[in-house]
Amino acid sequence: MSIAWTSRYALRMKGTKSSAIRELLKLTQNPEVISFAGGLPASDLFPIERFKEACRKALEQSAALALQYGETEGYKPLREMIARHISRYGIKAQTENILVTTGSQQALDLIGKLLINAGDRVLVEAPTYLGALQAFNLYGAEYVSVPCDENGLRSDLLEASLRSGPKFMYVLPNFQNPSGTTLSEERRRALVMLANRYGIPIVEDDPYGQLRYEGEHLPPLVVLDRENVPRDSGYTLGNVIYLSTFSKTLAPGLRLGWVVAPPEVIAKLVQLKQGSDLHTSTFAQIVAYEVARDNFLDKHVKRLRIVYRERRDVMLDALSQYFPPGVIWTRPKGGLFLWVTLPNGMDANELFREALKQNVAFVPGDSFFAPDGQRQEGSQHFRMNFSYAQPEEIREGIRRLSVAAKTQLERLRVTHQS
Amino acid sequence: MSIAWTSRYALRMKGTKSSAIRELLKLTQNPEVISFAGGLPASDLFPIERFKEACRKALEQSAALALQYGETEGYKPLREMIARHISRYGIKAQTENILVTTGSQQALDLIGKLLINAGDRVLVEAPTYLGALQAFNLYGAEYVSVPCDENGLRSDLLEASLRSGPKFMYVLPNFQNPSGTTLSEERRRALVMLANRYGIPIVEDDPYGQLRYEGEHLPPLVVLDRENVPRDSGYTLGNVIYLSTFSKTLAPGLRLGWVVAPPEVIAKLVQLKQGSDLHTSTFAQIVAYEVARDNFLDKHVKRLRIVYRERRDVMLDALSQYFPPGVIWTRPKGGLFLWVTLPNGMDANELFREALKQNVAFVPGDSFFAPDGQRQEGSQHFRMNFSYAQPEEIREGIRRLSVAAKTQLERLRVTHQS
Repeated sequence: MSIAWTSRYALRMKGTKSSAIRELLKLTQNPEVISFAGGLPASDLFPIERFKEACRKALEQSAALALQYGETEGYKPLREMIARHISRYGIKAQTENILVTTGSQQALDLIGKLLINAGDRVLVEAPTYLGALQAFNLYGAEYVSVPCDENGLRSDLLEASLRSGPKFMYVLPNFQNPSGTTLSEERRRALVMLANRYGIPIVEDDPYGQLRYEGEHLPPLVVLDRENVPRDSGYTLGNVIYLSTFSKTLAPGLRLGWVVAPPEVIAKLVQLKQGSDLHTSTFAQIVAYEVARDNFLDKHVKRLRIVYRERRDVMLDALSQYFPPGVIWTRPKGGLFLWVTLPNGMDANELFREALKQNVAFVPGDSFFAPDGQRQEGSQHFRMNFSYAQPEEIREGIRRLSVAAKTQLERLRVTHQS
Repeated sequence: MSIAWTSRYALRMKGTKSSAIRELLKLTQNPEVISFAGGLPASDLFPIERFKEACRKALEQSAALALQYGETEGYKPLREMIARHISRYGIKAQTENILVTTGSQQALDLIGKLLINAGDRVLVEAPTYLGALQAFNLYGAEYVSVPCDENGLRSDLLEASLRSGPKFMYVLPNFQNPSGTTLSEERRRALVMLANRYGIPIVEDDPYGQLRYEGEHLPPLVVLDRENVPRDSGYTLGNVIYLSTFSKTLAPGLRLGWVVAPPEVIAKLVQLKQGSDLHTSTFAQIVAYEVARDNFLDKHVKRLRIVYRERRDVMLDALSQYFPPGVIWTRPKGGLFLWVTLPNGMDANELFREALKQNVAFVPGDSFFAPDGQRQEGSQHFRMNFSYAQPEEIREGIRRLSVAAKTQLERLRVTHQS
């Protein structure tokens, strides 16, 4: 009598395909490999002393709170701090507009849980964040992809897709994952106006907004959306659900993100979160609050900007120096990623295998496209992270990668000639 | 132009009813109220000094790991520790059998995500843990409730319900929430045998198993299930998914639970967890590991047993001393809860309102029944927590509650006479 689940219960388990990227990334854990694949902030910049002090304070002053069950909405002083913090970007939120989540990923999951019924379409950028696709797929989402260029989502191509009635629109306006591009202000205004006209809610994902290395901060969609509303309408936050996180500015190991939305949306998300994990770690929340308070987070973000800008510049320089002609890449004004486009005929998945032989890694582009969104074309691209590795590793990694790319190009030429 | 979500998007949001119990419990936050409503461990027993030391060590020795993104499966030394720990209860698991979750509540959510399609039936005890109902409801679960008595689920009534083809069976064999009862060994064996015969997987939820105050430990279902399998079948863990948590033994504020299951089930749950929150806080996991290691957790649990046994006994004594005749209650051998049954005609929701006037609170019983499961009858019961309040508060709380109960009884008599 065999009672293995695979044979006995296989049909009971809902369809979840093995994640190709997950399997690929396992290969990059070899310490010999210089990996540009992850989306990791720099471990060497974690403010460890400040964390030690914060833990000591949290446990001396509020252990009974920090170690006990807490409110699903989140630790109130942290929500108040988030409200103050985002008000500087023009986002006017009260604590009732804010829900603390177990990383932004949970916010995406809860939004899927709330809004997506099987077969509903979600409008996404092509390419888009693959973690969002993973979260939404589970609820049976289908997709309407809108192409992007160096100024982000092509708002001129948006209207036809909006007319097809997607449930909501998911966009990353700042230093997008994976492309590194930023949605221009003109397009932001067009997008908000069109979303309002067609009654399509916007989910604005902004994990990187604070990590800008050059140029002026652009207004978030949630702020532009509010400008459309008459002052006396009694309305505070409208058509946009805004997401952000401490993962890129403080530490991803805490798993702390947040949602900003109208109170009635927050109330629904709170109910769903209660069934998902009751609440986010009170300990992590209080420690994060103690670390971030008294403007420490601002000072820390300033430091991150300097270091990450340097790493971005090293990567851009090395790409120019080493890469063969015909390969092009984006020049991000912030964030953690840039996006490389290979010449016609070259395939990022094949290059990935060649790159691993040279002990260097990235993420091939096709995972970042929804099923309807030029996934085929996606294999001409790949994503590179520039925040995690040290400058000298970045330079060496790009050198190795260029060897792999030249090998691939040579192989292509031979194939083409024969 | 009003763009409030309630009017504009109400129909887009999936049905989630406001949780009655959540609203009720808000009333109990008044500090004047002695609350037996929560499921909270005693805040005064948190091992604060050990936590301070653990934080210091985690940040001095492994900050780059503790603050960074981690593996979805969980921190490996913690999973190894869990494997060693449960082996003492006869559960033979490797790390590949263990997934760390963001509290047990997330395990329930992931199981719902994996196994429940809308309309699928889940076999549950009547009464059962309301958090499981909340998690499963979201996936459109329907229910088959099986009655319980002082020895737990009535295995003699199980077969007809199994024949109706539930997707899985959800049971809490030890010191059940809410009833406090323990499933007898004879019934455990019958349940495992029947589940196997009908091919129905068992989800065994065991948050309280270690908190036994008297009597002998009984074998978990996951162990009994394994005894049924021939040694040479190559099978390690079969028909049972086992859940437990650090929330009752260490600190709920960490949000750390775990699943023990066959590797192919763990692999699926890992994929689902990745979409849900990427991974559980590495910081919380490493701190928990540093707190629990070197047998500290065992010593701490021994201390909890002594304190909680005393609190249970104080509550049982006070109930005998103060409560009017006709009211009966369970006598739990462990855990955090006991279950009170009111005489015919008395309603726990009405008593709750009366009790609040006396500044004392509990959870009325109807929330603990699935829609098919004697919910009406449920209002004759209520759940009482005995782990959180101090002994003198417990005594005073029961005195207040008895005043409320006598007022209710008097009112009933008057109504009956007139």
